[in-house]
Amino acid sequence: MQSINPRNAAKPSPSFDRSRATGPTVRSPTPHRNPPTIALLSDFGTSDHYVGVMKGIILTKVPLARIIDITHEVEPGRIRQGAYALWAAEKHMPRGTVVVAVVDPEVGTERGVVVAQVDSRWFVAPDNGLLDLVLADHPDTRVITVDLDKASKLLLHPRSATFHGRDVFAPLAAHIANGKKILRYGTSARRTVAPWLTLRGSNDPQPTILSVDRFGNIITNISIPTGTHVQETVRMIGIAKVMISVCIDTYADAPDNTPCMIAGSSGLLEIVVRNGSASSMLRATDRTPVQVVWA
Amino acid sequence: MQSINPRNAAKPSPSFDRSRATGPTVRSPTPHRNPPTIALLSDFGTSDHYVGVMKGIILTKVPLARIIDITHEVEPGRIRQGAYALWAAEKHMPRGTVVVAVVDPEVGTERGVVVAQVDSRWFVAPDNGLLDLVLADHPDTRVITVDLDKASKLLLHPRSATFHGRDVFAPLAAHIANGKKILRYGTSARRTVAPWLTLRGSNDPQPTILSVDRFGNIITNISIPTGTHVQETVRMIGIAKVMISVCIDTYADAPDNTPCMIAGSSGLLEIVVRNGSASSMLRATDRTPVQVVWA
Amino acid sequence: MQSINPRNAAKPSPSFDRSRATGPTVRSPTPHRNPPTIALLSDFGTSDHYVGVMKGIILTKVPLARIIDITHEVEPGRIRQGAYALWAAEKHMPRGTVVVAVVDPEVGTERGVVVAQVDSRWFVAPDNGLLDLVLADHPDTRVITVDLDKASKLLLHPRSATFHGRDVFAPLAAHIANGKKILRYGTSARRTVAPWLTLRGSNDPQPTILSVDRFGNIITNISIPTGTHVQETVRMIGIAKVMISVCIDTYADAPDNTPCMIAGSSGLLEIVVRNGSASSMLRATDRTPVQVVWA
Repeated sequence: MQSINPRNAAKPSPSFDRSRATGPTVRSPTPHRNPPTIALLSDFGTSDHYVGVMKGIILTKVPLARIIDITHEVEPGRIRQGAYALWAAEKHMPRGTVVVAVVDPEVGTERGVVVAQVDSRWFVAPDNGLLDLVLADHPDTRVITVDLDKASKLLLHPRSATFHGRDVFAPLAAHIANGKKILRYGTSARRTVAPWLTLRGSNDPQPTILSVDRFGNIITNISIPTGTHVQETVRMIGIAKVMISVCIDTYADAPDNTPCMIAGSSGLLEIVVRNGSASSMLRATDRTPVQVVWA
Repeated sequence: MQSINPRNAAKPSPSFDRSRATGPTVRSPTPHRNPPTIALLSDFGTSDHYVGVMKGIILTKVPLARIIDITHEVEPGRIRQGAYALWAAEKHMPRGTVVVAVVDPEVGTERGVVVAQVDSRWFVAPDNGLLDLVLADHPDTRVITVDLDKASKLLLHPRSATFHGRDVFAPLAAHIANGKKILRYGTSARRTVAPWLTLRGSNDPQPTILSVDRFGNIITNISIPTGTHVQETVRMIGIAKVMISVCIDTYADAPDNTPCMIAGSSGLLEIVVRNGSASSMLRATDRTPVQVVWA
Repeated sequence: MQSINPRNAAKPSPSFDRSRATGPTVRSPTPHRNPPTIALLSDFGTSDHYVGVMKGIILTKVPLARIIDITHEVEPGRIRQGAYALWAAEKHMPRGTVVVAVVDPEVGTERGVVVAQVDSRWFVAPDNGLLDLVLADHPDTRVITVDLDKASKLLLHPRSATFHGRDVFAPLAAHIANGKKILRYGTSARRTVAPWLTLRGSNDPQPTILSVDRFGNIITNISIPTGTHVQETVRMIGIAKVMISVCIDTYADAPDNTPCMIAGSSGLLEIVVRNGSASSMLRATDRTPVQVVWA
């Protein structure tokens, strides 16, 4: 049980309490620790008050928290899209960060609420696959399923059936960021999630599109090993009946108006169009199937 | 006058000055207070520099402020929409928060600039109804109308006629967040605003749509008392000639492709479609009229 | 060389290290300095994890940094649009702010990476014109071109060819915000950039549209001197074959459905429509040419 007590995390840790450390007469045992960090990801968008409310609750309970928005524009209910952004971002968060992810189409039902610690970071999310890409990289991770009745005193009252970002996830994250124990409020089990990254020559898992980014770049689940060229992994990829075979190393290498394959910034194969949108040109979304001819 | 001096607000208060509290040899009288918080709401969007400029001014004047964005995507000039988001969010902000709201189509005219204290929180806004939902919940609130000429030394110079978020509202909020008095720069009067929440059986005020959220959920001004079911308040609601009578407790209970009534997270009646957009399905906006058959 | 050492910047300065100042037994030489500020501008949008990743890296390396988003919704690759927002915002950032700007269509090529100090503020950007509006206002500014190989130990490894916001710009900004020297990692040269602001009666530079804002206001590069009326500078402006001659002082003065000229909040001529979008009404973008009849 020690291993999931955040007080044991490497510095900087969520147990830092700067309000106690700053007073001139209070001698804190951890004067040099960094303030706690909470990172948020959701499908709440930013046109409503939902994210602001979560931040208000977090800063009420963790006055010195630093809050990082990963993104709130996951398409409504698109869990895999959120799982990808979470995976791509979390490794760059400060050590000890509590990552709160809320893409939660089953909010208000009996779906679980889970907490996991991966390396130094904590994750709080509905138990619907949103953490799967992170967990797949860390087999045998201990996952705590929170019993909301047991944890009731940590949560907002009355608990709505429609906004657990406010009533459940923000308060749980604040609790963890304050360095307090969570295991007593749930049950713990080791979990190993099936791989999601497709390696050269494999069709298990199936090559798919994970996400389409702001630039219209199409991000697949195909791994391009660090230091290799795309053409060492893939000869051609078919997206929406178009076969793509041009491989480039930087955007500027791309011929005009031509979808090209490139190694993206997270080590995944991407399809891009220079100064344009591959997604628009190919009429592809993250639901479009792909075919691969391996190198 | 004491009651509107923020130094009297409960801790955490805007009078906290961490730059004085952190030095090892400075003995601050308030070493344990939390840093000041400023929450922002506007129709400025996030595609321009406007919000960033407001934050730059705030952090210049209140170096240790925590800033929370409620939303900046109120539709341009839609005061009631902003008033709703403000009302739904403000109660979750940390105590002592200064809430700055700028939906200000009459910027540059003689429209008033007001400051109000409600519970522990402060509000700064144009005097155009943006605070009405908050004020309606707190009758007889003291509202200070700021005299911009008297307050001139607090504001930016030259004062533009088009961007008071930068020139007037951000500096005023910073002044208040620094724990300084505002009454000397204006005149104070008690204000009571007419109710906006429609209770069961009433048509005063008229049932209306307050907002449509990111998910296409339609939020009305009809109150669903805590702990009750929707069907105890409403039998049917008509929106854009469609009569809706299905009541659900969670999104997951909704039949496919069917607009349903649900108690939203702020205690208001909402019309939702599971895994879809009620607003799109019904072609409804926050200008669409509604008819109610009460339970 | 002293002048580009951030330790010499006026207080508040990026050399502040609050983690050292907060401990009760550590006597910092700068206990009253403000925390470092980093302002971000990019074309990354907010629907992906890109901006969140930059913030994670910054807060890992500068734990007490305050981060301000200027905007991330510059249209992809539109350098001039970003340069305008940067210029309009930077003067309102706290003294000592490190401004990081990433609109970088040539990412991964040999395009330069530059650092400049203007007044008390630092700028980090690709060398593609993104800083031109700021530099034009400050002739003979020292610009450091960073040698990424020399600076390698500051950057992320492996360095991707597609996401220098993460791998290059965020780490460089963190280095500067921590008060560390940058000149040793590059070469310095004075730079003077041609004016971009068009004065009354001049066609050098050509009058153009810099940006269209969220409200559909069209922002030109034509200077309206402080304290003067628009009609003292311009008699008429032609945009997309429509000649506009109505001048107003505030939005509320505008006749209905009529494009009008107004002095914008940054001292530039803007074309606006009251309660509407000039951009939509005139079908104008920031690529639309303009003709001016001077007063």
